[in-house]
Amino acid sequence: MRQNALLRSAKGLGVPSTARKEDRKAKLVVATPGLADDSHDHFVVRNGVRCAGVHLIVDLYDAKRLNDIDHIETTLRRCVDAAGATLLHIHLHHFTPSGVSGVAVLAESHISIHTWPEIGYAALDVFMCGKANPNECVPVLREAFKAKRVAVSEMLRGQGS
Amino acid sequence: MRQNALLRSAKGLGVPSTARKEDRKAKLVVATPGLADDSHDHFVVRNGVRCAGVHLIVDLYDAKRLNDIDHIETTLRRCVDAAGATLLHIHLHHFTPSGVSGVAVLAESHISIHTWPEIGYAALDVFMCGKANPNECVPVLREAFKAKRVAVSEMLRGQGS
Repeated sequence: MRQNALLRSAKGLGVPSTARKEDRKAKLVVATPGLADDSHDHFVVRNGVRCAGVHLIVDLYDAKRLNDIDHIETTLRRCVDAAGATLLHIHLHHFTPSGVSGVAVLAESHISIHTWPEIGYAALDVFMCGKANPNECVPVLREAFKAKRVAVSEMLRGQGS
Repeated sequence: MRQNALLRSAKGLGVPSTARKEDRKAKLVVATPGLADDSHDHFVVRNGVRCAGVHLIVDLYDAKRLNDIDHIETTLRRCVDAAGATLLHIHLHHFTPSGVSGVAVLAESHISIHTWPEIGYAALDVFMCGKANPNECVPVLREAFKAKRVAVSEMLRGQGS
């Protein structure tokens, strides 16, 4: 039973269509080992900065339902939809006595969540490349977990790479 | 075949023993809804700051073997061992024509990697709570991918929560 509880929500989704993959297919036309200037078409341009992807660090404080693994899974899926991303795989663990860790692997990178229900705190990160918009996840998270305070910081990964 | 390639390395590890879980069990003795001062025993103290966990953002530049999914999986497992963490689940995707995304779910949180082999770039994050030491992953990554430049930034998640 304990093992069941830990592994209750490991689901491989056999959906190979991926935005990142399509980006890469498109890029294949121009990408060469010599890295021509136009070989970074799949990169994100954010505030004029070209980067591999946008990585949001999201902290939820005074939040609720952080021990509800089904709600957390539903919320991660809603985030994926809101961002316009493609879910490839999702995996969640429920810890004893409380707390959940979950990751959603996306065609565009990933979303992770780790919760400390006893103190109302959750640490997330939302990393997306391509055309998906990670910022669309923030209102979904705020509403789903009734967080009284939400802190978001943004990193542009792979600048100049 | 395409689907097999995408899902070739999704493995649920039925090992329920977890450092985080043990921490939480220990904490159960003192944790109450009222959050007594000593209820944060499982938190990390880093440079005198108490936090939920240490989150490293790691960028590898001019790196090699970033399209080798087996090597990436082996390296993630080596990172877990080096950090003294407990692996619960690991999942990797290989993209067409190139690139790998992978996540290792840990008892102590997670490691993620996303690679752009054509430009020698990889974006990782290493988030660990409890007694695991995420910094021990950095030399493993540097060596495994022969990265000419490694950038690491550290965030102390959940301060004051």
